[in-house]
Amino acid sequence: MNRGYFITFEGGDGSGKSTQIRILMDRLRESGYDVVLTREPGGTEISEKIREIILDPANSDMDDMTEALLYAAARAQLVSQLIKPALEEGKVVICDRFVDSSIAYQGFGRGLGDAVGVINTYAVDGCMPDLTILLKLDPARGSSRIAGREHDRIEQASDGFHRKVYEGYLELEAKYPERILGIDASGTIEEIAEEIARRVGAIMK
Amino acid sequence: MNRGYFITFEGGDGSGKSTQIRILMDRLRESGYDVVLTREPGGTEISEKIREIILDPANSDMDDMTEALLYAAARAQLVSQLIKPALEEGKVVICDRFVDSSIAYQGFGRGLGDAVGVINTYAVDGCMPDLTILLKLDPARGSSRIAGREHDRIEQASDGFHRKVYEGYLELEAKYPERILGIDASGTIEEIAEEIARRVGAIMK
Repeated sequence: MNRGYFITFEGGDGSGKSTQIRILMDRLRESGYDVVLTREPGGTEISEKIREIILDPANSDMDDMTEALLYAAARAQLVSQLIKPALEEGKVVICDRFVDSSIAYQGFGRGLGDAVGVINTYAVDGCMPDLTILLKLDPARGSSRIAGREHDRIEQASDGFHRKVYEGYLELEAKYPERILGIDASGTIEEIAEEIARRVGAIMK
Repeated sequence: MNRGYFITFEGGDGSGKSTQIRILMDRLRESGYDVVLTREPGGTEISEKIREIILDPANSDMDDMTEALLYAAARAQLVSQLIKPALEEGKVVICDRFVDSSIAYQGFGRGLGDAVGVINTYAVDGCMPDLTILLKLDPARGSSRIAGREHDRIEQASDGFHRKVYEGYLELEAKYPERILGIDASGTIEEIAEEIARRVGAIMK
């Protein structure tokens, strides 16, 4: 089977994910790869409708478990409708956030613990990333980077929440060192892009 | 603790749930009970938004697991925001469909099996019905009863699907005889209402 590559980006808000995703995508396309870029929650018509419910600041009384189940529902649709078919066609799929976000935000941040992992076993259905780039930035610094713009329901959560998310990411990095590449996101854009390119090059040869 | 009573109604489309719910609610209110009537998927603002995504016939390419997770998400919100608080205030909560619908429709009908039960453990969070009224009607007869009106995405599923749902309900009835009261829904409205009233009276005295 000519299976493609599945690369996910993780990190807190303001950690520079979007910039690095764009740089990596351009490099891979220049090298001739067929790259599909997607994001979570979202990426399919149904998942984008679920995204609206999750992120709408009007839904401030959302139960934490409801939030975790909605993320998982959007993910199940994205995996079955877009990610799996693209990988089967040998494409490179880059996804802005994936299952590690649920573990960090709902498992650690909201305190739902192992339930999030169990639920997402069904959502992911065996389709785990070949490589996860984790951009590590102290949450206080990340939040000052996004201070200028309007915040969605998750971004509005407390500093304590974002601190727990950050610690959750560090635990995941320690737990899955072969899959997760943690990078200090306080470096320059070029430094970070080089480190990502090296590791991606290593898994693709 | 002055906990109320939690009664759910289950059965295929056209089995007469709405009629029997209305009759039971009126009787209980006449007897002085404080009754809260709700339905699934829905019953809270957030759950009704999730309902729209689930039932919209436009979402015909929804993955089965996405469907199961969306039902669970809507349920988690309903349980935490409406059902648990009402029971804690000593009210009677009547819910049109609950977790047994997910087991029957997604577990048996869609063939997702035990995954549905596991996911819903988190959604229900220990809040199971005191009594479940299952209105049993051969699915061919049920579908002829609803033939005149427009069908949502679930009602549009094949006859084979609705046959598996029916068989799932019968398995649940056999598995939980103390909680689930199965009633032949081909009887008259009055006969069925009497049988329901007797059983409800028995648990409430």
